[in-house]
Amino acid sequence: MFMEMTMEEFLNELASDSPAPGGGSVSALAGGLGAALVAMVARLTAGRKGPADLEEKIEENLQVTLRLRQNLQEDVDRDTAAYNEVVEAYRMPKKTAAEKEARSRAIQEALKGATQLPLQVAQRSLEVLRLSLWALEKGNPNTWSDAAVAALMAQSGIEGALANVAINLDGIKDNTFKEKMKAQAGEIRREAQLLREKIGDPLGERLS
Amino acid sequence: MFMEMTMEEFLNELASDSPAPGGGSVSALAGGLGAALVAMVARLTAGRKGPADLEEKIEENLQVTLRLRQNLQEDVDRDTAAYNEVVEAYRMPKKTAAEKEARSRAIQEALKGATQLPLQVAQRSLEVLRLSLWALEKGNPNTWSDAAVAALMAQSGIEGALANVAINLDGIKDNTFKEKMKAQAGEIRREAQLLREKIGDPLGERLS
Repeated sequence: MFMEMTMEEFLNELASDSPAPGGGSVSALAGGLGAALVAMVARLTAGRKGPADLEEKIEENLQVTLRLRQNLQEDVDRDTAAYNEVVEAYRMPKKTAAEKEARSRAIQEALKGATQLPLQVAQRSLEVLRLSLWALEKGNPNTWSDAAVAALMAQSGIEGALANVAINLDGIKDNTFKEKMKAQAGEIRREAQLLREKIGDPLGERLS
Repeated sequence: MFMEMTMEEFLNELASDSPAPGGGSVSALAGGLGAALVAMVARLTAGRKGPADLEEKIEENLQVTLRLRQNLQEDVDRDTAAYNEVVEAYRMPKKTAAEKEARSRAIQEALKGATQLPLQVAQRSLEVLRLSLWALEKGNPNTWSDAAVAALMAQSGIEGALANVAINLDGIKDNTFKEKMKAQAGEIRREAQLLREKIGDPLGERLS
C-alpha cells in the first residue's frame, strides 16, 4: 500500500488530520531506510582489499539486511493495519451486555496486536543497528556518513516503535501480557544502548 | 525528483551500489518526516480544550512546520545534486597545469556546497526538534507517540546531516571555512542536546 505511493503522497498522508499512518509506520520506515543504507555500504565495500573473509561477510550481511528491509517495508503497512483494527473495535456496537463484552474483547485483542507489531519493528531495527555497527567498522571509509545515518535511522526505528508499544499498552488490561511486553521492550533498549556505546561519538571526534 | 518516486523506488535507489542518494538525502527526509508528524499532531490537537492562546499557537506552529517540511523535502533532492557536483568536479581533465588548477578549484567549491547544504538540513531539523518538544508538551495526549517519533526523526536529521558536513569537510583546504563550519555544527549539536534534555526519557518512564 504505502510503498506504492510516491514519497510526496506518503508525507501528505502523514501530515493530514487522520491518525494513520502515524509514528508507528514512520518507525518501520526508519528501520527500512537504515537497512537500505547498510545494503548500499555493503555493496560499495565489496571488491575492496581486506581480510580473507571480508567478501563472504559482506555477502552474508547484504542478504540479511535486504531481508530486514523487505520485512520493515511490509511493517509500514502492517502497523497502520493494526491501528485500524483498534479503531474498528472501538466502533463496535455497545448497547446490550453481550455487545459490550464482544466489543471489549475485540478492543483488547486489537490492542495486543498493535503492541506486538511495533515490538517486532523494534527487534528488526535492533538487527539493523547491529549491521550498522559492522558497516561503520568494516565498511568503505568513503561511506562512513552513510553507515552513521543507517545507525541513526535504526535507533529511531527502535525507540519510535517502542513508543508505539508503550502507548498501546496503556489500554491493555491483561497484566501478565503487559509485564511481558515491558520486559521485552526493556531488553531491546538495553541491547541498543550497548550497541550505541560501542559506536561512541565518531561525529563529535570528526567535528573537534 | 525523489519526491515523485514511489517509496519502493526510493529505497531501491538507496540500497543500490550507487553512492547517491545516500545518507545526506535520508537525513533531509528524516527531518521532513518529523515535520509531517508535527503537522499531524497539530491538526489532531486543534479544537481541543486548552488555554486561550492554544488555537493561535497551533495554527502558527502548523504553518512553520509545513514550510519546514517543504524545505526539507526539497533538500532531499538538493543533497544528491550537491554530491553529484563533487563527483563531476573530480571527473574534470587534469593533464595541463591550468586544467589541474581549474579542477582543484571546482572540487573545493563543490565540497563547500556539499557541506553548506547538510548544515542547512541540520538547522531545519533543529527547528523540527523544537516543534516536536512543543507537540510532546501541548499536543493531544493520544498523539504522544507520534510527537515522540517526530522528535526522534528530527534528531536523526540533525546528526545525520552533520555527519555529512563532517565527511565533506575532510577534503576542504580552506581552514577558515572549516573552522566556521565546525563551530556552527557544534552550536547546532549543543542546542539539540539542550532540547533532548528538556524532553528527557518519557519512554523509559512509560515502560517502567
